[in-house]
Amino acid sequence: MSEIDAAEAERHKAKMAKRKAVQDAEVAGKTVAEKGLLIVNTGPGKGKTTAAFGLALRMLGYGRRVGVVQFIKGKWHTGEKDAFAAFGDQVAWHTMGEGFTWETQDLQRDIAAAQAAWGKAQELMADPTISLVVLDELNIALRYDYLDLEKVVAALKARREGLHVVVTGRNAKPALVEAADLVTEMGVTKHHFSAGVKAQQGIEF
Amino acid sequence: MSEIDAAEAERHKAKMAKRKAVQDAEVAGKTVAEKGLLIVNTGPGKGKTTAAFGLALRMLGYGRRVGVVQFIKGKWHTGEKDAFAAFGDQVAWHTMGEGFTWETQDLQRDIAAAQAAWGKAQELMADPTISLVVLDELNIALRYDYLDLEKVVAALKARREGLHVVVTGRNAKPALVEAADLVTEMGVTKHHFSAGVKAQQGIEF
Repeated sequence: MSEIDAAEAERHKAKMAKRKAVQDAEVAGKTVAEKGLLIVNTGPGKGKTTAAFGLALRMLGYGRRVGVVQFIKGKWHTGEKDAFAAFGDQVAWHTMGEGFTWETQDLQRDIAAAQAAWGKAQELMADPTISLVVLDELNIALRYDYLDLEKVVAALKARREGLHVVVTGRNAKPALVEAADLVTEMGVTKHHFSAGVKAQQGIEF
Repeated sequence: MSEIDAAEAERHKAKMAKRKAVQDAEVAGKTVAEKGLLIVNTGPGKGKTTAAFGLALRMLGYGRRVGVVQFIKGKWHTGEKDAFAAFGDQVAWHTMGEGFTWETQDLQRDIAAAQAAWGKAQELMADPTISLVVLDELNIALRYDYLDLEKVVAALKARREGLHVVVTGRNAKPALVEAADLVTEMGVTKHHFSAGVKAQQGIEF
């Protein structure tokens, strides 16, 4: 592979020059310099929450503050929570869930937990020191009608200027997708759970 | 929504009890307790690299060490790099790229950079103190044939026991997908670039 003749190098250069022209035109066509985005990570694949945390990390690297509300996850120990603790009060972390809905089996309790979480979410969204709010598994609370979809979407659309919000969870509601600026669907091409591998420290939690 | 009659609560409980039985059976069916996974994040959507960094963060939370090799990204400043610096020598970070291929327009230089990056990747994979290695944009180097696909896949398959490796980038090669334990395809449902929004600090870099 290290043997490249001059003609090949020239062809590559011409192709990449053309590619660069397309790329530059694309960049020039973008005129909105800063916009607080409503981001939705959905779909059955892995990476919805981890990508949200990756974005949070990026923000932290710029010295900005990040808020996290976990709507479903309960009090169990996770690596991400410990890792974010390294950033001190740059991170406002709130695990508000009671665990998976099939564990609690208590509708009233699930609804109360979701409503408390949504209250905390609104508080973080109103805090002007925070640049990014992660609403982890909010889609699940919406899917089970624990929260009023219309009110939640209206509040997300009315977020203050410059605030980025990331919503995660499967089965994002169409009204939320409609309101969002960026929606990524994580699809499963292959999953190790199907091969009988258990959830592992550092990978699943 | 807070008005729930007893019958509704009962129906919910029965449904969730059934769901739990399915869930428990699934968990019981998993027999492999620990396995170093080969993970591929691919597809045109956002979240491939950020999800890899989210996983890295999770590992760091458990006090484990993480290695990162960036195959394409050049020397420009990113938030994630600064954020990972907070973890000191828990992170071995190597930005080995020369920038996008359409910026360098120099095939020989791109190949040399990819080969140096792959050398570093093999070094990190051999380091027994490291639990997770992120090979960011390796798929791009493979797509342009900067590296020998067969050799790379063989080395990834022969990784030491317990080591997790995450490969990111669009257009993952079929041979890599075949070798992987977990493959997620990030699909674009909606993207703010199409609405003319520029790349922003904390979101894209």
